[in-house]
Amino acid sequence: MGKVGWRLISVGNCARAPSVRFELSSFALLTRYLKETSSESGTTTAAEEESMWVIDAGDNMMGRLMEESWCGLEGLRRLKGIFITHLHGDHVFGLPSLLSAVKRAGGKQKVTIIGPSGMRKWLNPALWVGAPDLGVRYRILELQYTPYWTRNWNFHPSESGYKIVSMSDDGKWDLSEYIGTDHFEVKAAPLRHGIPSLGFVFQKPGRKLVVLGDTCDSSAVESIGKDCDVLVHEATFTKSEAQIAQRAKHSTAEMAGNFAKKIGAKTLLLTHFSSRWLKDNQQETFDGVRLSLEDPVSGLTLRNVQKINPYHGLTVILNEAKEAFGSESLYAASRNLEIEL
Amino acid sequence: MGKVGWRLISVGNCARAPSVRFELSSFALLTRYLKETSSESGTTTAAEEESMWVIDAGDNMMGRLMEESWCGLEGLRRLKGIFITHLHGDHVFGLPSLLSAVKRAGGKQKVTIIGPSGMRKWLNPALWVGAPDLGVRYRILELQYTPYWTRNWNFHPSESGYKIVSMSDDGKWDLSEYIGTDHFEVKAAPLRHGIPSLGFVFQKPGRKLVVLGDTCDSSAVESIGKDCDVLVHEATFTKSEAQIAQRAKHSTAEMAGNFAKKIGAKTLLLTHFSSRWLKDNQQETFDGVRLSLEDPVSGLTLRNVQKINPYHGLTVILNEAKEAFGSESLYAASRNLEIEL
Repeated sequence: MGKVGWRLISVGNCARAPSVRFELSSFALLTRYLKETSSESGTTTAAEEESMWVIDAGDNMMGRLMEESWCGLEGLRRLKGIFITHLHGDHVFGLPSLLSAVKRAGGKQKVTIIGPSGMRKWLNPALWVGAPDLGVRYRILELQYTPYWTRNWNFHPSESGYKIVSMSDDGKWDLSEYIGTDHFEVKAAPLRHGIPSLGFVFQKPGRKLVVLGDTCDSSAVESIGKDCDVLVHEATFTKSEAQIAQRAKHSTAEMAGNFAKKIGAKTLLLTHFSSRWLKDNQQETFDGVRLSLEDPVSGLTLRNVQKINPYHGLTVILNEAKEAFGSESLYAASRNLEIEL
Repeated sequence: MGKVGWRLISVGNCARAPSVRFELSSFALLTRYLKETSSESGTTTAAEEESMWVIDAGDNMMGRLMEESWCGLEGLRRLKGIFITHLHGDHVFGLPSLLSAVKRAGGKQKVTIIGPSGMRKWLNPALWVGAPDLGVRYRILELQYTPYWTRNWNFHPSESGYKIVSMSDDGKWDLSEYIGTDHFEVKAAPLRHGIPSLGFVFQKPGRKLVVLGDTCDSSAVESIGKDCDVLVHEATFTKSEAQIAQRAKHSTAEMAGNFAKKIGAKTLLLTHFSSRWLKDNQQETFDGVRLSLEDPVSGLTLRNVQKINPYHGLTVILNEAKEAFGSESLYAASRNLEIEL
């Protein structure tokens, strides 16, 4: 990606279900910048600074990150922030282990955790009991959504800050001042799901990335997500399962395509596939050939793109989304699929 | 193992550390019995009943269980109880995911969770937030150890019971009445470690199995563990690291051997190896040849026994334990090593 830029990498694409390769829907965003330092003599030197941001952290997120050459121990030392879209177990139960690993990987940084109200209620007791000697500082930002989980647990000795961020008058949260970098901005908007769920919008000059949590109605993201380069959207069910989707407050592939079209997304990345489609392992789903390509619509470079096996049910999901989107620029978030931004 | 019997299976042997194959120290105990049912006409039929008991549940315990042919979805439906030796994250952070998987595997059973005081303090908030729709009933038994974590969180809608079990006058806990089977007995005794830690003794006619949590002093187990067939003992450090072991309140391999000798254990199974020894993957540690054998001392049948590669540092651990134990009947708990009891 050259000297500076972003890499959005899929770390899993499953909705929760017990399966052999339990790769729950989650992403890593690697950001690289030149950091300029001025010496007393007036000379300026620039060094690369790479940070890792994680979006959702279900069971074994740490193990999955450790498996990858782009992360490993070094990656954990660069982990700056964790964005949690919502508090269902398949998106958060790996959080205590991930945090516990940072010190053991040699990390000394402070980690910021951003998500809906209620995180602290269970994360602090979990860390108190399971990791009293956590060894890295963390800061929790809870986005106040509804009067949901208001009661909080004791302060943890490693907790270096706790803040409840109220919604702005426009119904969004502006998180830019909390992420400790002026290289990009982050906003969040509420999604409709069984419990409070969030969509995050990451923006830097010339690039916009939108990552949505589980949702059955994302209209609040529209204004801040408009004309994004990449939209990550769940596609748990097919059109024929629309009633199940409605009950479970999830999206069909068609809904994902419609929303991508509505906000003018250039590229749509689908994830959070039901175990109905993914069966027990991803080898059966994808053809295993990893392609690098330049997307003809968005002009973005993608790596590790895999085709879905033509006989596999997941093609239905992709086709329904494509028809609604009215564009060919869409992909299933197979493990390690990477988009340069 | 014939129609009835026990299988103790290693599901991991690592002390906590971020590594590629993060297989944290834990075991499954599969018990199989003939269950007799009398019909009204007076005829008696016998059917096999298999149960799974898990000892410790660090990150990705569910994923590791799902990988194995002896467990899978069916195994989760037979999960009856979870024994937690102590509350450090590498022994408990996989518990919420494991419990959440039971219903999704089609399980309808009640799961009993047995461990030191303090479990409920974080497990209930974790399940409240991450799995409000857990779908299986669970019961927590907390062994009151010291006036440790006394404050408890709200009742979870799936929680079908909560009991604080006090220590008997002899300084042990008798758990037999709580495990819902009269096929075997379970007792526990306190171990010395950084936080309260437990040793469990499983006993049936003619067989005794002792599984210890992290420990630097297990003398309280001696009376109830005496002459056991199998002792599972941590061996985190070597003799030359005795000072580190003392500070961390862990055992050296020599301490494990000494204790096995002291209580007259027939077979010693070593686990919880430091990442100093295990490096990043177990392929380098073990030779990959899986043997079935009958142990000449205990007469027990073992399966999937792997030799440690001769040049590998873990041989030091094994040799030091062997010398102290004064017996050849000891093994490293490589993944899937299985002992028939």
